[in-house]
Amino acid sequence: MGGAAPTSSCDVDGIVLQSPPVSGELQFIDWLRSQSAGSRGVVVPVGDDLAALRWNAANLLLIGADQVLDGVHFDARIHSPRAIGRKAMNRNLSDCAAMACLPAAAVTTAALPRGCGLDYAQEIYLGMREVADPFDCPIVGGDTGSWNGALALTVTILGRNAGIKPVGRAGAQPGDRVYVSGSLGGSDAGRHMTFTPRVELARTIARSHRVTAMIDLSDGLARDLRNLCQSSGVGADIDADAIPIHDDARDGAARDPRRSALQRAVGDGEDYELLCTSPDDLRPNGLTLIGVIPLGAELRLRRGDGSMEPFPSGGWEHEL
Amino acid sequence: MGGAAPTSSCDVDGIVLQSPPVSGELQFIDWLRSQSAGSRGVVVPVGDDLAALRWNAANLLLIGADQVLDGVHFDARIHSPRAIGRKAMNRNLSDCAAMACLPAAAVTTAALPRGCGLDYAQEIYLGMREVADPFDCPIVGGDTGSWNGALALTVTILGRNAGIKPVGRAGAQPGDRVYVSGSLGGSDAGRHMTFTPRVELARTIARSHRVTAMIDLSDGLARDLRNLCQSSGVGADIDADAIPIHDDARDGAARDPRRSALQRAVGDGEDYELLCTSPDDLRPNGLTLIGVIPLGAELRLRRGDGSMEPFPSGGWEHEL
Repeated sequence: MGGAAPTSSCDVDGIVLQSPPVSGELQFIDWLRSQSAGSRGVVVPVGDDLAALRWNAANLLLIGADQVLDGVHFDARIHSPRAIGRKAMNRNLSDCAAMACLPAAAVTTAALPRGCGLDYAQEIYLGMREVADPFDCPIVGGDTGSWNGALALTVTILGRNAGIKPVGRAGAQPGDRVYVSGSLGGSDAGRHMTFTPRVELARTIARSHRVTAMIDLSDGLARDLRNLCQSSGVGADIDADAIPIHDDARDGAARDPRRSALQRAVGDGEDYELLCTSPDDLRPNGLTLIGVIPLGAELRLRRGDGSMEPFPSGGWEHEL
Repeated sequence: MGGAAPTSSCDVDGIVLQSPPVSGELQFIDWLRSQSAGSRGVVVPVGDDLAALRWNAANLLLIGADQVLDGVHFDARIHSPRAIGRKAMNRNLSDCAAMACLPAAAVTTAALPRGCGLDYAQEIYLGMREVADPFDCPIVGGDTGSWNGALALTVTILGRNAGIKPVGRAGAQPGDRVYVSGSLGGSDAGRHMTFTPRVELARTIARSHRVTAMIDLSDGLARDLRNLCQSSGVGADIDADAIPIHDDARDGAARDPRRSALQRAVGDGEDYELLCTSPDDLRPNGLTLIGVIPLGAELRLRRGDGSMEPFPSGGWEHEL
């Protein structure tokens, strides 16, 4: 429910922020207010229903939201509230990376298990701040409530393009090359909680190269490649031997050979690496060339022996 | 997790919107995309990690988020998904009313009980749209997931001031009068699901009068008045006989006399009426004058016999 708020007014790179209300336990709100006050330069506690931001006219406003749910994106029996808070924010920072924009501000909601305690709520918030602060991305508001359910966190992120045209999913063209950052698969061994959003890498390549389409690998290469190609109206020829396989995927396959390391690299979600297309050579930026965009609309996987097969479907999908 | 999205590009009163990704069940996403396509004038399906908005430089950007949780803000055993969707959006529209701004766009996240089905998810979305559409406030993105938990919805609202200076909580001054819209108390009888956010009324009074502070009554008059007064650094003298009591509060008191109708009007939450201060006479606008801002910092209740007592504490607070 509405309520008092941690409040701040600050000028961030031309954007003036006035923070909003986080409703909920009054002690938590007081603590949040003290955190806001301590964390920014100019701070004028005000407390209001909505935060007011003066958006720099030179910047496009980008916005999106992602949630993390106990038992789906984390396990509250295992993962610390600090780590859960980090992940909730990092998933959204990764969406900024996918668009090559800079995080500018966030709002959050928290559905807390009744009785979790003030410390627990504080740790979640500190985890969010820990990964957002390096981007000068303040949490400017939200809503806190407790219920009989499990922990659910939502972060809404505002991004600004800051001189770089946002990179969407729809621009891939025949002749482009297909790249990924990092290596893929097996993130469920732990990496899904500890990944680093590729914001700086995305900005670097989008600034210096023609990046025609980009997405972050949250649902697995199989599904995210399909999303990118469908948005762009193109196909893809991917070289199986070129896909960078993470050691976690190899270890998983060694433990349970029913799914190969390649299957894990292609089908597992939550890599939070970049998948992008460009006519340019992005390998000097540390990306791996995994294929090309052909004239046709099919998604195909080229095996080491030169044979072609349909690219696997799969990847993460929520059932309703 | 990230994923495909309902996408649209549209020009709303100078603000260009490109909608983002709602991840989750593919069929739901396709359906969402068809909804977006049908609902706005100019629509270019794109589908991306974040929505891109060109914010009109003449408008401040206001932002906030509120959630609704099963068992706290609604009861999924009783309330229809359409009604729950309406409430989730209306709570945020009410935050816009509290600031006298116009809703401009929303992003939503939904944590759906596994197995709830496509129809259920669609009904929630349609409920949100039903109350947002009259404000030309499109849902431009979000995230859908299913889990073993209960239904939790978050709406993040973007508002624009559209020619009216946003009204915060901190401007009340000694000599101001204190007003409320509508009548208060007993919303748990059902009104908490069906209220109308006072956006137009708030804009009307803020356009034509000096409204020094405003808040929407989500946590009950006792707590929200205290919030407003603390933010403004003032007290309040409230006339007990002047507080407009809703019939629902009287009916509740008749059924259970342990809490009087006045206690319900003061302590119940979720009226979603406006509480504001002004040196002007707002009664011609249909508001009720309930008190004044005195020189002192105390919150006091004046009884019919002229006696003064401390204003009751109370109102809604989440325990952690």
